[in-house]
Amino acid sequence: MPFIKLKMRMRKIVLGLAVSLDGFIEGPQGEYDWCFTDQDYGLSAFFSRIDTVFMGRKSYELAQKLGDAAAIPGMPRVTEYIFSDTLTTVKPGAILVRKPESVQKVKEIKASEGRDIWLYGGADLTSFLLQEGLVDELWLSVHPLLLGSGRPLFSGIKNRIGLTLKETKTYETGLVSLTYNLGSTV
Amino acid sequence: MPFIKLKMRMRKIVLGLAVSLDGFIEGPQGEYDWCFTDQDYGLSAFFSRIDTVFMGRKSYELAQKLGDAAAIPGMPRVTEYIFSDTLTTVKPGAILVRKPESVQKVKEIKASEGRDIWLYGGADLTSFLLQEGLVDELWLSVHPLLLGSGRPLFSGIKNRIGLTLKETKTYETGLVSLTYNLGSTV
Repeated sequence: MPFIKLKMRMRKIVLGLAVSLDGFIEGPQGEYDWCFTDQDYGLSAFFSRIDTVFMGRKSYELAQKLGDAAAIPGMPRVTEYIFSDTLTTVKPGAILVRKPESVQKVKEIKASEGRDIWLYGGADLTSFLLQEGLVDELWLSVHPLLLGSGRPLFSGIKNRIGLTLKETKTYETGLVSLTYNLGSTV
Repeated sequence: MPFIKLKMRMRKIVLGLAVSLDGFIEGPQGEYDWCFTDQDYGLSAFFSRIDTVFMGRKSYELAQKLGDAAAIPGMPRVTEYIFSDTLTTVKPGAILVRKPESVQKVKEIKASEGRDIWLYGGADLTSFLLQEGLVDELWLSVHPLLLGSGRPLFSGIKNRIGLTLKETKTYETGLVSLTYNLGSTV
């Protein structure tokens, strides 16, 4: 009788961000004062399913600059992976991933034991992982405003990427929560 | 006794478009094959409330080039206003509006009798009218895909613009219909 290995559930990479209707995650000066904080908007449930964060260099540097101001209430203790070819060190506890090794590294992390992974941006890392087919889910909290300019959520994606709508939730403040699985069924 | 003039309901300008989740209204080669056509998605109801279309030069030229291929089934007979400073003539029946006179002209059209007005794009005309405070409603049919590149719905908006969510509708194909009034209440 052959040895049967149980297939582990792969950890999911979830691109989860607050976004303006015109697709910006920050205003032109890094503003995020427009993000609603009056209620939970699904964040607690999301935090309970992640234990790891992926972010690009610019997002990392911005978070470092902001320090405690960037701390999100209720955020669990996470392992942070910083994707960069230019940084030489990152803060204690965080893990630096270089581009040439990133696809293999991400596949290893996804196959390892643990909770899901929060892809926190920015656009370069997001488009790279999307195009490599390594992102499993999008969760966008679409805020009711146009920012006009700022940091775009999506940028530099070279091919069409199909999505399957998983859930929508509308809040009385006008925030619309959209969740998609990657890959198209239509 | 003073003469009392009844206030007419002002005609609304509605920016109504199909858009990818990453905010494009066409692919990089003008593709719109990704737009769902399997059902009505609210278009009939929308067509029954409009009798006028506003469009910019690029949208007009594209529609002229496509000819009958650009015709939308069920589209009512409309008066078309083409906003351009470079065109010298437009097709018979259509009306050319130049930028210096456009704000005044749009205000006159809104105050005149008639049904609502479909702002069909593109981004230059849209951002101009949005910033002049002349757009009343956004109706986006958000399709479940990322196009990566193409013609953006929004571009060149210089200030934040607040929105109030009016309605969301989710279709089983994954299309999410979002309707906003201009102006913020939160």
